[in-house]
Amino acid sequence: MTTPLQTSRVPVAIVGAGPAGLMLSHLLARVGIESINIDIRSRKEIEETHRAGILEQGSVDMLLDGVSDRVLRDGHRHDGIELGFGGEGHRINFRELVGASAYLYPQTDVFIDLADARERDGGDVRFSVTDVSVDDLLGSPVMRFTDADGVAHEVRADYLVGADGSRSICRQAVPEAERTQYFHEYPFAWFGILAEAPPSSPELIYSRSDDGFALISQRTETIQRMYFQCDPKANVDDYSDDRIWDELSKRVEPNGFTLKTGPVVQKTVLPFRSFVQTPMRYGNMLLAGDAAHTVPPTGAKGLNLALADVKVLAEELEIAIKGKDLSALDRYTERALDRVWKAQHFSYWMTSMLHTHENATVFDNRRQLGELAMVTGSEHGRRYLAEAYTGWPIARKDA
Amino acid sequence: MTTPLQTSRVPVAIVGAGPAGLMLSHLLARVGIESINIDIRSRKEIEETHRAGILEQGSVDMLLDGVSDRVLRDGHRHDGIELGFGGEGHRINFRELVGASAYLYPQTDVFIDLADARERDGGDVRFSVTDVSVDDLLGSPVMRFTDADGVAHEVRADYLVGADGSRSICRQAVPEAERTQYFHEYPFAWFGILAEAPPSSPELIYSRSDDGFALISQRTETIQRMYFQCDPKANVDDYSDDRIWDELSKRVEPNGFTLKTGPVVQKTVLPFRSFVQTPMRYGNMLLAGDAAHTVPPTGAKGLNLALADVKVLAEELEIAIKGKDLSALDRYTERALDRVWKAQHFSYWMTSMLHTHENATVFDNRRQLGELAMVTGSEHGRRYLAEAYTGWPIARKDA
Repeated sequence: MTTPLQTSRVPVAIVGAGPAGLMLSHLLARVGIESINIDIRSRKEIEETHRAGILEQGSVDMLLDGVSDRVLRDGHRHDGIELGFGGEGHRINFRELVGASAYLYPQTDVFIDLADARERDGGDVRFSVTDVSVDDLLGSPVMRFTDADGVAHEVRADYLVGADGSRSICRQAVPEAERTQYFHEYPFAWFGILAEAPPSSPELIYSRSDDGFALISQRTETIQRMYFQCDPKANVDDYSDDRIWDELSKRVEPNGFTLKTGPVVQKTVLPFRSFVQTPMRYGNMLLAGDAAHTVPPTGAKGLNLALADVKVLAEELEIAIKGKDLSALDRYTERALDRVWKAQHFSYWMTSMLHTHENATVFDNRRQLGELAMVTGSEHGRRYLAEAYTGWPIARKDA
Repeated sequence: MTTPLQTSRVPVAIVGAGPAGLMLSHLLARVGIESINIDIRSRKEIEETHRAGILEQGSVDMLLDGVSDRVLRDGHRHDGIELGFGGEGHRINFRELVGASAYLYPQTDVFIDLADARERDGGDVRFSVTDVSVDDLLGSPVMRFTDADGVAHEVRADYLVGADGSRSICRQAVPEAERTQYFHEYPFAWFGILAEAPPSSPELIYSRSDDGFALISQRTETIQRMYFQCDPKANVDDYSDDRIWDELSKRVEPNGFTLKTGPVVQKTVLPFRSFVQTPMRYGNMLLAGDAAHTVPPTGAKGLNLALADVKVLAEELEIAIKGKDLSALDRYTERALDRVWKAQHFSYWMTSMLHTHENATVFDNRRQLGELAMVTGSEHGRRYLAEAYTGWPIARKDA
């Protein structure tokens, strides 16, 4: 007994229903363009995947523009960060420097807001699908999948968007001769924990010490997120709570910060990796977010970059669809990549400025402190960092 | 027949009569503190040593403050530089961005102005001395030398200053256990030329290309100074005029610049090296300029750093001598090193941002362009670079 194949046609088919995919369908819906999202994960699974927690000002503005204003209630506006080095903290006051803020608002909450908004607005979002494949990318692309009820679908679209994350099947559908891949492996990793403790600080602390880097972050009043630089081959089982707090303390205390500790309820090793695939277009398929690029976590750029991608993509898709202007698709790659490479550099910069390098000479270490002094000792340096951290403006269409 | 030993006493004895040493004695004379400079080189030899050619705003201000105003007539005020990359030039307009300028005014002219001023003001400067040695650095230091007429001298001082360049004998007099040395070798060198040609550009062009870096500089209306990145083991004899112009052209033409060529009248390979010795004090001996630190040429910081050193040193020596306050000497190290490490970083940064690296991956090259885009695409980034290039303010005494 086979269920008949369901066929349909839609202007934009989106593989992926994470923040990038859902934000794209939200933006398209607002300009009257229909789309469908599919995801192999269940809604619950995505809700429980803990990822980044810092939103740029522009990402928050995108949420506030018709998705949800919950970020203003449940998120925390951070008007700055502390850079700890050389025995003390150095505040980078975003609001004073560039009139913007960053927001502590976990990716899971961004997802929940977007999923709720798509439901509220009648969006077609299918979770828990299987057998996903894409085809005819140079013509009128096809997206095939089997839905959660076992029904097979074939959706034909004008444009197909791969917003299906770092293991993207869409990215893999681009023939080798048609793309360039850029990789960078870092000799660093982060040991990340969730701990039941009160916040140690109202804002994020990026602390450079001779024993390595640590990031003191927050999540709620009772659960905190912290990270410390570790060997990429580190095994979480080798780290007791005592050892974890010891590692964190020796990285922040020399700079004058004190930690509030508590039981560690989750531990994980986060690898550092940079990746970009260009172009972000193949025929009538466009890639967005992690499907096209990943950044190391230091600059908190991953989610923000994905949202910036789809903001540009929605603009260009509207021009392509309503104006029948195909050059819009090339412009997408060009506009998005400008930001992607700045973000790759920013992530690399924050990483190399704050982490200790295994083979560093005494010169390297002292020069690193010279850089931190040059940045924090200059209003221009602080503004340069603050602007990048809170997010560059999205490049205009005619730029 | 032996000439009797001439003994004398002076508050400050200065080994070295290059720009740093002479500027120091000039500044001390202005606050009524006597000093003597000696140098193993002849005046003519120093006048003919071609070195750096770019002065920070603050260095020019030091010349204008009682040395000479010739820099305003014979120097060229540069209100910006061009950063060439990605197919075009990107102007960093210093004057608009930070209200300062850099000046093209060769180190030989700085030296001539200072030597003339010391002569005019009755300073005691001995060139072409031999048998220089220093002693009793922990007590009342002694400077011994034989003057150009063959007379042996022993000068006892309250303070001795080593401003005797990168091969400093004063630096070498500090016992190993009392100092830390920081080295960095770069995998780069510059091939520098003097050419008989009209200027190719009114201001400096720093050009990054896939074939390496080039710096298009100027000297006079008829003689130009240019550099291109080369192998540190390069041999000048392997480079014909044709090859030199070819190497330069392929590094600047892709960014839209055209060179005016002519006979190459001098060629030399400049090694890249960073060095710092700390502290810059040992007992009653203080080190200044190249004696304490060297930077690679990319940021044009060497001479400027030396002048900034002696500005701070003159202030602190005045306090030490007139106020009998010995903590001033420690403050010198601290204040000077703050700038030194920023300058080391700035030189490292300009170098790594603009040079091609032999083992660079496609990611590294693309990220480098991302950095250049991040800096030049942001007013804050441009200001950050402009401030560093034209020179940070000298840290105040109470900072």
